[in-house]
Amino acid sequence: MPGARLFLIGFSGAGKSAVGRRATALLGWEFADTDEAIVKADGRPIPRIFAEEGEAGFRRREQEALRGMLDRERVVVSTGGGLPLDAENRRLMESAGVVVALEARPETIEARLAAVPPDNARAEGMARPMLRPGQGESAVERIAALKRERQWAYALAAWTIQTDALSIEQAAHEAARAWRRLGAAALHGGDSHVAAVVVGGEAAYPIVVGWDFLEAQAGQRFIGAGLRGRAYLICDQNVLHPYGRLVQRSLTAAGVEAHLFTFPPGEESKSLSMAARVYEWLAEMRAERRDAIVAVGGGVAGDLAGFAAATYLRGMPVFHIPTTLTAMVDSSIGGKTAVDLGAGKNLVGAFHQPALVLADVSALTTLPPRELREGWAEALKHGLALDADLVEVYESQADMLLALEPELTTEVVARNAAVKARIVTQDERETGGVRTLLNYGHTIGHGIEAASGYGRYLHGEAVAIGMTGAARIGAAHGVTPPDVVERQQVLLERFGLPSTYDALDPAAILEAMTRDKKVSAGAVSWVLLDGVGSASIHRDVDVEMVREVVEGLRAG
Amino acid sequence: MPGARLFLIGFSGAGKSAVGRRATALLGWEFADTDEAIVKADGRPIPRIFAEEGEAGFRRREQEALRGMLDRERVVVSTGGGLPLDAENRRLMESAGVVVALEARPETIEARLAAVPPDNARAEGMARPMLRPGQGESAVERIAALKRERQWAYALAAWTIQTDALSIEQAAHEAARAWRRLGAAALHGGDSHVAAVVVGGEAAYPIVVGWDFLEAQAGQRFIGAGLRGRAYLICDQNVLHPYGRLVQRSLTAAGVEAHLFTFPPGEESKSLSMAARVYEWLAEMRAERRDAIVAVGGGVAGDLAGFAAATYLRGMPVFHIPTTLTAMVDSSIGGKTAVDLGAGKNLVGAFHQPALVLADVSALTTLPPRELREGWAEALKHGLALDADLVEVYESQADMLLALEPELTTEVVARNAAVKARIVTQDERETGGVRTLLNYGHTIGHGIEAASGYGRYLHGEAVAIGMTGAARIGAAHGVTPPDVVERQQVLLERFGLPSTYDALDPAAILEAMTRDKKVSAGAVSWVLLDGVGSASIHRDVDVEMVREVVEGLRAG
Repeated sequence: MPGARLFLIGFSGAGKSAVGRRATALLGWEFADTDEAIVKADGRPIPRIFAEEGEAGFRRREQEALRGMLDRERVVVSTGGGLPLDAENRRLMESAGVVVALEARPETIEARLAAVPPDNARAEGMARPMLRPGQGESAVERIAALKRERQWAYALAAWTIQTDALSIEQAAHEAARAWRRLGAAALHGGDSHVAAVVVGGEAAYPIVVGWDFLEAQAGQRFIGAGLRGRAYLICDQNVLHPYGRLVQRSLTAAGVEAHLFTFPPGEESKSLSMAARVYEWLAEMRAERRDAIVAVGGGVAGDLAGFAAATYLRGMPVFHIPTTLTAMVDSSIGGKTAVDLGAGKNLVGAFHQPALVLADVSALTTLPPRELREGWAEALKHGLALDADLVEVYESQADMLLALEPELTTEVVARNAAVKARIVTQDERETGGVRTLLNYGHTIGHGIEAASGYGRYLHGEAVAIGMTGAARIGAAHGVTPPDVVERQQVLLERFGLPSTYDALDPAAILEAMTRDKKVSAGAVSWVLLDGVGSASIHRDVDVEMVREVVEGLRAG
Repeated sequence: MPGARLFLIGFSGAGKSAVGRRATALLGWEFADTDEAIVKADGRPIPRIFAEEGEAGFRRREQEALRGMLDRERVVVSTGGGLPLDAENRRLMESAGVVVALEARPETIEARLAAVPPDNARAEGMARPMLRPGQGESAVERIAALKRERQWAYALAAWTIQTDALSIEQAAHEAARAWRRLGAAALHGGDSHVAAVVVGGEAAYPIVVGWDFLEAQAGQRFIGAGLRGRAYLICDQNVLHPYGRLVQRSLTAAGVEAHLFTFPPGEESKSLSMAARVYEWLAEMRAERRDAIVAVGGGVAGDLAGFAAATYLRGMPVFHIPTTLTAMVDSSIGGKTAVDLGAGKNLVGAFHQPALVLADVSALTTLPPRELREGWAEALKHGLALDADLVEVYESQADMLLALEPELTTEVVARNAAVKARIVTQDERETGGVRTLLNYGHTIGHGIEAASGYGRYLHGEAVAIGMTGAARIGAAHGVTPPDVVERQQVLLERFGLPSTYDALDPAAILEAMTRDKKVSAGAVSWVLLDGVGSASIHRDVDVEMVREVVEGLRAG
């Protein structure tokens, strides 16, 4: 069974024991060592087992020791240097957890082994007899020769850490990072609620999607995701009942102390001054680094709570409980947090990946119609820019989706979460261009929001108008086929989304667009559709044509 | 000559070319490929070279191609699969840059090679003839067998990236990360001004220390550290002349557009509202992600500018130009940024490592005497907690240091920077306990600052009183020998630092201490001296005894 287990393989002196113990502390797990387990079970020191039963007898005991460890969870296992040479041992480890190789050059290994005091228990291990140099052979040569024979097996690990230049602390961090990146997939394989796992540079986290399961599961899932301290829930006054209280009950029932902070609904709360009030509340409550911030609600709650979590005490864990469609399919996934400035939306923020995203799709039934509608904009965007199959679902099943049919809606939210998770996993910090594709419709959309002072248009509405503009720009630029423009238009209308704005000055929209974060060296990167489900980035778009399109989006 | 060069080694199909090209883009470097260089120089495709001159002829050309690349800088070199088998090739690469191995399992390699269209230029490479399976051998078996022979050479890389589970984008990020971590040491080896290199999880950066070299070197060193956009300098009104202007001149002379923001001197400016003013200025100036924030000044400038850089546009590069002793030896190194809240100092912030720290020790000659004095507190702390030799320098050369004798003072600042860099490198995010040792004297120190409303005592003064308290607590707890308490006391006096406070309520200090970030599950972690240059962490300190010590620190 896959589980929370980290196996360290590698040559003697690669640091499996020291690094393993330190990584154990970082993960808050337990430590095990196959050599120690053999000696404990058998009573004889390893050289005697070797002497009396040969290598075969030792290897049999070694595999028994390894098997015995697979009952345990949350364990770091340091293995004997020869253990991964055996195919069955490798199969056991790979199916039970994540296998990480520690590497070091022969010279490093020689120096480390020479530094171990001779009465150290580890020095009694099996490595020493096999490492005794032959005639005319130096210790380094003997190590290099034996290591060379085994290197193929170490190379089959899922991750490798070259330890020569690292301190024990640094190597342990690398090992914990390997687990955080590779382990989540192993952990969540059998969980039908897990729509996707986002794998970032420092950690991985599951997106859990279900229908009406929040109160029953939130508490246990928080603990499962590692919460050991208190929970500080942040939601707006409209979300407090029922969801804020419901999550609080679920946490309390699971034995987690949970406190609530509420703020006035609306984009105006995504401000530095509201962040300051959150900070003051956290200070008053004596929040600690091991506690967690929990965002319950839509994009504003997620951005505000996420930014507070990224910055209070220089970083606390954050959990997301999205209750709007926009938050479920988009804003709760990917670690972007922000507050707005007068000069622009989301200008201040941080990348701060959550520990868990828990989306209860049944919450959509309590959303005001306009808020539900705007949420479809981001979901349509995922289809239009990245997933043609999803667009076909929107086209063929719009009625059931608009009626929030539980099973279909849950599946579509999960598929959207998976699209977003895939992109974020590929390009966590929006450095590679892939994540930029998610900004389809957002350049003009942000311009409209900024020019209208935020609030007149909901984010999704602005994005819908922005997608209409982007499609027209794409057509004029010669990349978006006319039938794609038309299919998008039909979809936006079917889901009740606007494609024009009124009573706004186009010049103000254009001016705000140039202040976007994605602007580099003064040039806007345009995300345009090549087809349905396929987008690409263009930096050579004619500014005059853009002006005409933006002017043409004005109603009437 | 060591330089900015990243060599990718590994088996065919490990991704050297695709990952290398993407890593090249991430680093902003150029790309080179030994196989391509051979074909270009020779005119014949590689299989023909093999057929006509045998492997030896090919290997000779391969080494020539590699040598030809060592004239270039800022280059990612993708190497042929057999290249690192040759000891001279390995020596050439190791002495010229950083060698990173890309790894993949034989099954992964087989699948990747099968997916390459046969007319692809890479498929014409040398790998194919050697990879042709023998009788009764599968393609995977042939790959596994050949790879097994070569594995020992790949294991000699300085870093290894297991690519099986990674996208090209992710693997490229890992390769760039390997360079950022390991490359800096190679780059700065011959630079006598580099006091230390901090190696963090995501990047490494040099601490450059000199005397009266700022105007001559700042601009070029910024460009050398990667600055390609504009510079936004942040300093207080007292530091503007001469240092703000001086740095601006140096940048302008180097062709970097540089703008200045000034704020009122003092801890009061380390606030969210001042950060908001910095944000508004950056928005007005249209700052972009490729631009840099530059902190010029003491701890307040560094913390404020660092926090703004960590959060504006979700993160911009930051450069530190410390002009106070505290900032040079301590606060500019390690990436801690913060602003204060009413409820406590540094409660809001982020870890954000700088791209470069540039300390001109001659700036100390313009500091007011009290500010210079307080700076010695952190320098003495480094010695007392971590470096006994440094304490001996303080004891034997106090006169020259207090007179700011250029050579000795520069050396002592550089040694302090190295102490701090070593600790931060070991424990970037204060998770391992090692970095906590730097908090010696800070628990009571922060309590005094908070209870006195910040400003009455300078940070270093509060830390000096805190060290006196910590020494007494250490003595009462039975860990600090009496002569160590005494030596510390003599040093503090010699450097003009206080060891008692007056007109403060001890109860207020004690109450503020419990609000420290380092408090976990309600317990304070005390850093206590075991000896001069040696500190350790204690969580079992008697609260009543602490109360008595804090009360006893009151003057009179």
